[in-house]
Amino acid sequence: MTGLEQGAAWMDGRIIPVTDAAIPVTDWGVTHSDIAYDVVPVWQGAFFRLDDYVTRFLASLSALRMEIGMDRAAIEAALHEMVAASGLRDAYVAMVAARGRNPVPGSRDPRDCANHFYAWCVPYVHVVKPVVVEQGCAVWIAKSVRRIPKDSVDPTVKNYHWGDFTSGLFEAKERGYETTLLLDHAGNVTEGPGFNAFALFGRRIVTPDAGVLHGITRRTVLEMAAEAGLETEVRPLPLAEFLEADEVFLSSSGGGVIPVARVDERVFSNGRPGPVARDLRDRYFAWMGRAAHRSPVDYGPSG
Amino acid sequence: MTGLEQGAAWMDGRIIPVTDAAIPVTDWGVTHSDIAYDVVPVWQGAFFRLDDYVTRFLASLSALRMEIGMDRAAIEAALHEMVAASGLRDAYVAMVAARGRNPVPGSRDPRDCANHFYAWCVPYVHVVKPVVVEQGCAVWIAKSVRRIPKDSVDPTVKNYHWGDFTSGLFEAKERGYETTLLLDHAGNVTEGPGFNAFALFGRRIVTPDAGVLHGITRRTVLEMAAEAGLETEVRPLPLAEFLEADEVFLSSSGGGVIPVARVDERVFSNGRPGPVARDLRDRYFAWMGRAAHRSPVDYGPSG
Ligand SMILES: Cc1ncc(COP(=O)(O)O)c(C=O)c1O
Ligand SMILES: Cc1ncc(COP(=O)(O)O)c(C=O)c1O
Repeated sequence: MTGLEQGAAWMDGRIIPVTDAAIPVTDWGVTHSDIAYDVVPVWQGAFFRLDDYVTRFLASLSALRMEIGMDRAAIEAALHEMVAASGLRDAYVAMVAARGRNPVPGSRDPRDCANHFYAWCVPYVHVVKPVVVEQGCAVWIAKSVRRIPKDSVDPTVKNYHWGDFTSGLFEAKERGYETTLLLDHAGNVTEGPGFNAFALFGRRIVTPDAGVLHGITRRTVLEMAAEAGLETEVRPLPLAEFLEADEVFLSSSGGGVIPVARVDERVFSNGRPGPVARDLRDRYFAWMGRAAHRSPVDYGPSG
Repeated sequence: MTGLEQGAAWMDGRIIPVTDAAIPVTDWGVTHSDIAYDVVPVWQGAFFRLDDYVTRFLASLSALRMEIGMDRAAIEAALHEMVAASGLRDAYVAMVAARGRNPVPGSRDPRDCANHFYAWCVPYVHVVKPVVVEQGCAVWIAKSVRRIPKDSVDPTVKNYHWGDFTSGLFEAKERGYETTLLLDHAGNVTEGPGFNAFALFGRRIVTPDAGVLHGITRRTVLEMAAEAGLETEVRPLPLAEFLEADEVFLSSSGGGVIPVARVDERVFSNGRPGPVARDLRDRYFAWMGRAAHRSPVDYGPSG
């Protein structure tokens, strides 16, 4: 027992149990949700597409003008060390940059803050439970909220501004739906808490272009689609069109490709996971095993 | 020396130095900015309008469906105890409710989380430094961002979704402006990082109705206006009209009434604090001394 089985954190260069990892209540990361983060999966002992996730994280840092004093190599080394120490073979790995505390008393200038990096990992998280995925999941289109628009908070910078998602989740859960999908102010489909969305029309898959995170799993889906002989379109996706799709599915680092059997009252593919979504789901788990995408964790002799 | 001179926190019923107060990195308060908070000032040894601030906080809690297991009396007792222990006579006092950690492994259901309360206080914070206020402060209308709309995140529920404000602050600071004010998507004035906004036309003051926090200082200003023989209007305030005001000022628990001498290139009241704003500022500090609004802190024999 290392105390790290439930998860580990990297804080200031030290590895500690995730349950001990905390951030000051006066950190702007808390008081202003002034944080950029990213989440990369570890699957069967290897990071999947680690460089792509860290590239997105570094882009988020520069968009928010944060300086954490660590480059790609240092970040990847910290993540490797942490996951190895945890012993976790399948993990949800978060890397986080917070604006930090403002050491100048009373200063409201973000440039004065001491930005900092930390990371944590826990056993692999499925945004939708696998047992539900097998049935095809039920998604609720949030009615009381619209996705925070991109000219308020940039959704391509992965962030913790989840108030809109949480409102949608309450709506969904109370109605017995598994999760929620948000529309933008023009009535187009955007994304949900932890995933992008796709619609299938014949042999063509469509996913929203703007107002969403550019998911790494979304990119993997677009790449796998080519392999599967599917056409792809990245463009605005109005709700009315979405509801007419042959199949609907979600994409997330927390579970890969997630077939959807129901959106509100509308039933897809006879209320079961559709064949194309199922195929893409299988391909995703296969792709996670591809050497080109894997950065194996060195768990050491005792691992 | 108690170790609390720089501020104190109330965490799980214990009073600790504010610098030691931290929240778990996996708390939804961090990972989803799923937090309601409020900030009440302590001035010359007494809370100002404590009941009003706690009423707003309790309304935020129910809007977010949080259960912290503490009622008004328990919250006020915790705040009193904490400020007394700190010895601070003028303080910025934050009360916070966080969604908490989700004890169900992998659960994405907000209803599973263990909501919790904490509080902290530091020496009184001025959102604009008093020396700047004396000159009349310069405000930048954010160009790259719009205020998060109310149908995405409800601004009347005091929250830490400050990404839009922080973008605006970067814009402002880089141009040498003190702070920033955000427009909504229709081009109306909303609010800034920590304050509401007012425009004066003759003997009439106007402040935005929707898309903003209902500031307690804003309410105090509206009440003081009656006393000062000013008319008041609470309604949409288009930027073009705002820029034609005779005077402009801000209101915040962090400094009261803050006269504005410049908005972008436009200079108000000859680049000095205007007489009405100055009068309201003086009245505010006088009102903070009124017995009816004061809840004196019992600092005990050693205080
Ligand atoms: C808001 C949002 N959209 C989309 C995604 C999917 O992105 P990825 O495939 O990189 O996990 C996530 C991932 O957590 C997310 O939080
Ligand atoms: C976004 C926002 N608007 C307005 C205000 C002013 O409200 P109050 O007068 O209650 O401090 C605040 C206070 O911090 C705020 O954060």
